[in-house]
Formats: sequence, C-alpha cells, structure tokens
Amino acid sequence: MADNDYQCILFDVTDGVGRITFNLPQFGNALTVAGVKEFLHALNACEARDDVGAVLITGAGKAFCAGFNLKEIPLDSDDTEAVAEHFRLAALWWHQAMHKMVRLERPVLTAVNGVAAGVGLGMALCSDMVICSEHARFLCAWHAIGLANDATTSYSLTKVVGWRRAFELMMTNRTLSADEAVEWGIANRTYADEDFAGNVDQIARDLAAGPTHLQAMARDSFHSGWRRSVEEATEYEIQNVMKSVRHPYFREAVDKFVKGEIKADIPQVRLP
Amino acid sequence: MADNDYQCILFDVTDGVGRITFNLPQFGNALTVAGVKEFLHALNACEARDDVGAVLITGAGKAFCAGFNLKEIPLDSDDTEAVAEHFRLAALWWHQAMHKMVRLERPVLTAVNGVAAGVGLGMALCSDMVICSEHARFLCAWHAIGLANDATTSYSLTKVVGWRRAFELMMTNRTLSADEAVEWGIANRTYADEDFAGNVDQIARDLAAGPTHLQAMARDSFHSGWRRSVEEATEYEIQNVMKSVRHPYFREAVDKFVKGEIKADIPQVRLP
Amino acid sequence: MADNDYQCILFDVTDGVGRITFNLPQFGNALTVAGVKEFLHALNACEARDDVGAVLITGAGKAFCAGFNLKEIPLDSDDTEAVAEHFRLAALWWHQAMHKMVRLERPVLTAVNGVAAGVGLGMALCSDMVICSEHARFLCAWHAIGLANDATTSYSLTKVVGWRRAFELMMTNRTLSADEAVEWGIANRTYADEDFAGNVDQIARDLAAGPTHLQAMARDSFHSGWRRSVEEATEYEIQNVMKSVRHPYFREAVDKFVKGEIKADIPQVRLP
Repeated sequence: MADNDYQCILFDVTDGVGRITFNLPQFGNALTVAGVKEFLHALNACEARDDVGAVLITGAGKAFCAGFNLKEIPLDSDDTEAVAEHFRLAALWWHQAMHKMVRLERPVLTAVNGVAAGVGLGMALCSDMVICSEHARFLCAWHAIGLANDATTSYSLTKVVGWRRAFELMMTNRTLSADEAVEWGIANRTYADEDFAGNVDQIARDLAAGPTHLQAMARDSFHSGWRRSVEEATEYEIQNVMKSVRHPYFREAVDKFVKGEIKADIPQVRLP
Repeated sequence: MADNDYQCILFDVTDGVGRITFNLPQFGNALTVAGVKEFLHALNACEARDDVGAVLITGAGKAFCAGFNLKEIPLDSDDTEAVAEHFRLAALWWHQAMHKMVRLERPVLTAVNGVAAGVGLGMALCSDMVICSEHARFLCAWHAIGLANDATTSYSLTKVVGWRRAFELMMTNRTLSADEAVEWGIANRTYADEDFAGNVDQIARDLAAGPTHLQAMARDSFHSGWRRSVEEATEYEIQNVMKSVRHPYFREAVDKFVKGEIKADIPQVRLP
Repeated sequence: MADNDYQCILFDVTDGVGRITFNLPQFGNALTVAGVKEFLHALNACEARDDVGAVLITGAGKAFCAGFNLKEIPLDSDDTEAVAEHFRLAALWWHQAMHKMVRLERPVLTAVNGVAAGVGLGMALCSDMVICSEHARFLCAWHAIGLANDATTSYSLTKVVGWRRAFELMMTNRTLSADEAVEWGIANRTYADEDFAGNVDQIARDLAAGPTHLQAMARDSFHSGWRRSVEEATEYEIQNVMKSVRHPYFREAVDKFVKGEIKADIPQVRLP
C-alpha cells in the first residue's frame, strides 16, 4: 500500500507532523475495515519516517469518528456466527491500530473535531494529548447497540477519567460535551471553532519539534510503569537515562543549559 | 437460609431491583457476623435470580453502616488471640461479601443514607455507582480504634479517590460530607432528603432495565483491565464482543438502531 | 557516617519528627552524590529510631530541590560513557533514597518551600503528604536538558496527577504553581509564607503522634494493593488486622472507644 493509495483517510507530512485525517464523512468517519488498515499503515509510516516527529489524528467534516462501520456487517443474514466473525475481524484491526497508537515511538495528538463514539472514544483515550473543538462530543454507545465495550476501554477508561466516572460513563451511556471532556480528563483543552485549527497546528508542530526519543521513552514509561513496582520502574528509568545521555541531543541541550542559553523550565509545547 | 429468615437485613425484589437494606439501626447498621452472612446470602440470591437486574444496597434508619459490630468482640477477655481470631473471622466474611460485590454479574448501586465508616466506606468503594443523601458521611475510623485498614481499601481507595487523597483520608481520619464525597469521586451524586428515596428508586430501576450481560462484562472489564497490558485487555474485549453478538439483545438493539428507532446516545441510566 | 557528620543536609529530631533539610542553597539544593548518600543515611536513621514517628523533608533557602547536581558531571570530557556512568551512579543513589521513602515504616511529609524540579518533583510524588509554601514550583525539566525521565516518575506521576495530566506535564515541561499543585493532587495544601513553617510543624507533629505501625501498614497497603486483585489485597489486609490487634495500641484505643472517651471520627492529623 503506497501512501497515496489511501481511499478512506488523508495523510500528509508537514513541519514534522504526520497528519492522519479520517475521510469518510458520509459515514461520520466510521471506518470500514479497509479504512482501519489504511489508518494502521499510516501509523506505521509515521514511525518509519525520520521526518515525522509527532502524529496528529483528526476527522474530515463534522464528525471525528462515529465508531465502527455498521454497513459492513451482514445484518440481513440469520447467521449469527458470520456476524460475530465480522466483529472479531473488525475488532482485531481496530485494536492493532490502537496498540500501535500506544506503542508508537512518537507523541500522539488527537484533535477531536466532532462526535467521538465507541472506537472514536477509544482512540482519544489512547492518545498522549487530546484537543477538542467546541463541537466535540464523547460517548460510549456500546450498550445502546448491544455490544460489549472494546477499543481498549477496559485498559484506558479508568486510567483517564478515574474509577467512578468510568463506571458512570459506561453504565449511563451519557454524552460528554467538550467542556465536560476537559473536566473529566479526556481532553487537555477545548477551543472555539475559530481557534481550533490554528491551535491544533501549533501544538502538533511543538510536539514534533520536541526530543522524539525522550517523548517516546516518557510515553512508554507511563504505560509500562503503571504495572511495575517502584524498584522495577526505576531500573527501567536508569536504562532510559543512559540511552538519553548517549544521544547527541543531550550534549547540545546540556551545553546550552550550562551556558545559560536555556533554562530548565523552557516550555516544550505551548498550550494556549 | 431462606430469604425470609433474615434477622439483620431486609431483602426484596421489585421492578428488577434486588434491594438489600441493613436493618440493625440500634447498632448504626454495624452488622454482626450473622448479619454479614445474611448480606452475602442475599447477594448470591440476586445473582441466582433471573428477575434481578441490579442490586441496591442501603441502610435502615439514620446510618448506612457504622462499621463492623464491636459488641461481638470478646474485649473483656485478656486473651488477645481470641480477639484476633474474632477479627479474622469477621474480616473473612466481610471480605467474602465485598468480593461478591466486585464479582457480581449485576450492576451494584449503593445508596448511602447516613454514616459510612470502616466497612461502610469499603462497600461504597466496591460499588459501581454511589448515591448520597445530604446526611451521608464517609470516614475511615480504623486508626482511631487501633486497627489496620481493611474492607478492600488497599485495593479500592486509591482507585476511587486518587493517590494523594487516599493517603490524606487514611492518615487524617477526616470525615467527608456528602458534597465532598461527590467531589472526591466516592459518590456520583448527592440529593436533598426529600429527593433521595425517589431518585434512588429511579436510578436502580434504570440500572435494572439495562442490558445485564453487558453491564456485567463492563464492570468485570474495569476490574480486570486495571492490571493488564493494552494487548491483553483488548484480547478479552474481543471475547466479550463475540459473546455480546451471540446474545439476543444485540440483534434487537442493532435492528432498532439501523431502523432509526434508537440512537447510539440513548441514555441507559438517568442521573438527576 | 554519624548523624552530625552531614555536610549537605541538616538532621534533627524534635517532638517525634525526624526533620531532614537539604542544605546546599548555593545549588538550589541540587544534591551531590555525597549529599544523596547523607539523605539516605538520615532516612535509615529515622526508621531505626523509636523516637521518630514521622519524617519531614524540606529545603533550606529559597529552593526545595532544583534537581540533581550538574556540577559533578564530567561535561568537559568527550567521554560519553564517563558521563553516562556518572548518571547511572547518581540515579542509583537517588532511586535508593526514593525507594526508602516509599518503603519506610513511617509516614513521610514533604514541605516544598520553593522550586521542586526533576528529582525534587520525584520526591514530592513519593511522599504520603505534601505541603507547599506559596513559593513552591513544580516542573519536570528532564526533556529541557536532554534526559529521560526518572526519579520514580514512571511509577508515581500517573498515580498522583492522573493519566492525562502526567502526559501533559512531561510533554509540555510546564511549571506548576503551588495552587496548581494542589488542584493537580501533587500537594495536599498550600499556605501563605507567614503560615507555612507553623503549619508544617503542626502537621508533622500530628503525623508523628499517630499510630506509627498503622500508618506504616496503610502506606504499604496502598503501594502494594495497586497491583493486586481484590482477593489478594484483602488477604494481606486480614494479616495486617491480626497484627494490629496484637499491638498494645489497639487495646488502649478500643477501650477508650467503648467507654466513649474517643469517637471513631477523631482526627489523627489536622490540616488547616
């Protein structure tokens, strides 16, 4: 699959930012399985390219991602196992894409331009940072259509919104506004429509300009450290520190610091 | 033990709600070991009955549950080991009941009508959703009477209130009001006295009317997913999705959804 | 090493409080490796002394701890491995000290009088309670000078500030004020300058006067229970309850409670 063969997503690299845009607005960006494979392909391409310092995920049109694509499910059939097999296949590909979002050696920014339901919510939860437009909406949706929760929610939802709110969101199926998403910790910031695109671009560029290897070690350290003892966690931290000292970026940064050209509190990413 | 043999609790099933009411108001609903066995028996009965879609736990009189029952402890004795053995026995039964609260294949709503101390706090922490009356109070109490914290607090307190507040609550032994309990994430909502009973009933009925099998998978997924890698978590999610597709509820819900009779953001539980 | 041999820290015991003060104000209390060894020695001394009921960690002068001490690093050398080896050594000692903060059988209060950067932030995260002066500032700093995050942040940061804010703090390298540190859960309270020292002393004395063995079991239970199933967690809780019943403190406290001389909601630590 070549990058320019994508049918369901848009992909471009500008200013170090690998921008992946879901582009099935007629389905509220509910991706087909083919679309999910394109999404995974683009994530892998971002990791393979030296000129990509951060990944930005967003949606074309009014929705961010309304979930998986129901149109592909053989609902007319009475063959329940055929329907179940489709879900297994769709979930496997969606989960591969979200595993890659979690394991990617790049920071991942999600810009939620509209509704994020089901897997749309799951992708936001798997991101390092989430920015909302005022039109963003977040909801589970699983129970409404009779499905068990997936899309990493058993891993990510309690971490991101806390224990009590994870149960509340899933059991009530309530819809969160952009402001609520910030209050609940799903999103870092929300912006009015006229400021959204500009802020997304600036934050993505800031992330891309940052020390990729350190960002990658930080995100991995949070995911791994969650389940480690403090002693095990610090042993991995020391290994990372040694690697970071051997990287040319360290000598350059520390020299500037010693000369007083930068300070330790220099912002790496500006969040308006 | 037959359901109508209970001496320390009340139990009834109405509108799909298995309502368990602690009924030793003369002890602030500090249950005896016999009472805890009744509580566990009623929880098991709820799981065994097809007509129970949700469990509601509350207290009769002014207290929710003031803790374990001190009256049973042979404090007049100089035999420290006899006292210790009583605590082992009481803790084993209390913990069996709380394990069942966590593992139950039904959503669990706790309606805290007054003081919740020690095991009373622990039960609130083990619930999926907690509703308070304005008279609710939450406190640890363990250190005040010389006991190590139990009642699942080593598992549940940091999850529910966060790391810093878990230490603060335990080390200070401070008492939280109903409003503070909401702010800290112990409770979902607090209601004035005149609205409490009605809202409890409505929320419990909503939970009971929901898709029991999906609610059961969701609550299990949060408890299990806490300690899983993202890859392990999603493998279990796929298994749950397959099960949910094979359940008659799915076909009914998805058909309504495709016909536009329901929307993905339909609320499952209304929280006034 | 005798207690009065310390060159980089101050140590004294008053009213049951083992007070450790970082005392290299000319370096913003960025400790040398020798200083970290003194810090670890003082922590061990606190645990060995029966007259120490709580540990208080603070800084002399304007800073709490500005991080590790850059002056010791052979930055003039072109030998990257020599620089890396220094970091390994410094990290090992810093991490030993933080492991001891986590495992210490005493409650640990950190009084942040000024900037807490890098390892300074890590120490705050490892404490049971954190009190700030209005001059406190918290920042990561690692990425600014080219280093991977360490100082237990892969273990502690998501626990203390939550998932979304952990990524935000690390990726943006933003500096948190005292008020923000309270809002984010890093600190329990912040005080104006004129109230800071007095409140620190009172809170430390309250912690020291509390039941040391119960405080030690509580803090261990939170760190261990994070990664346990509910069933495993309660089994350890029962073991702790048995130990607590065998301790003379229990009989004394429970007798007072039965006689009505104390109540279950007696505050153990006052937080103004």
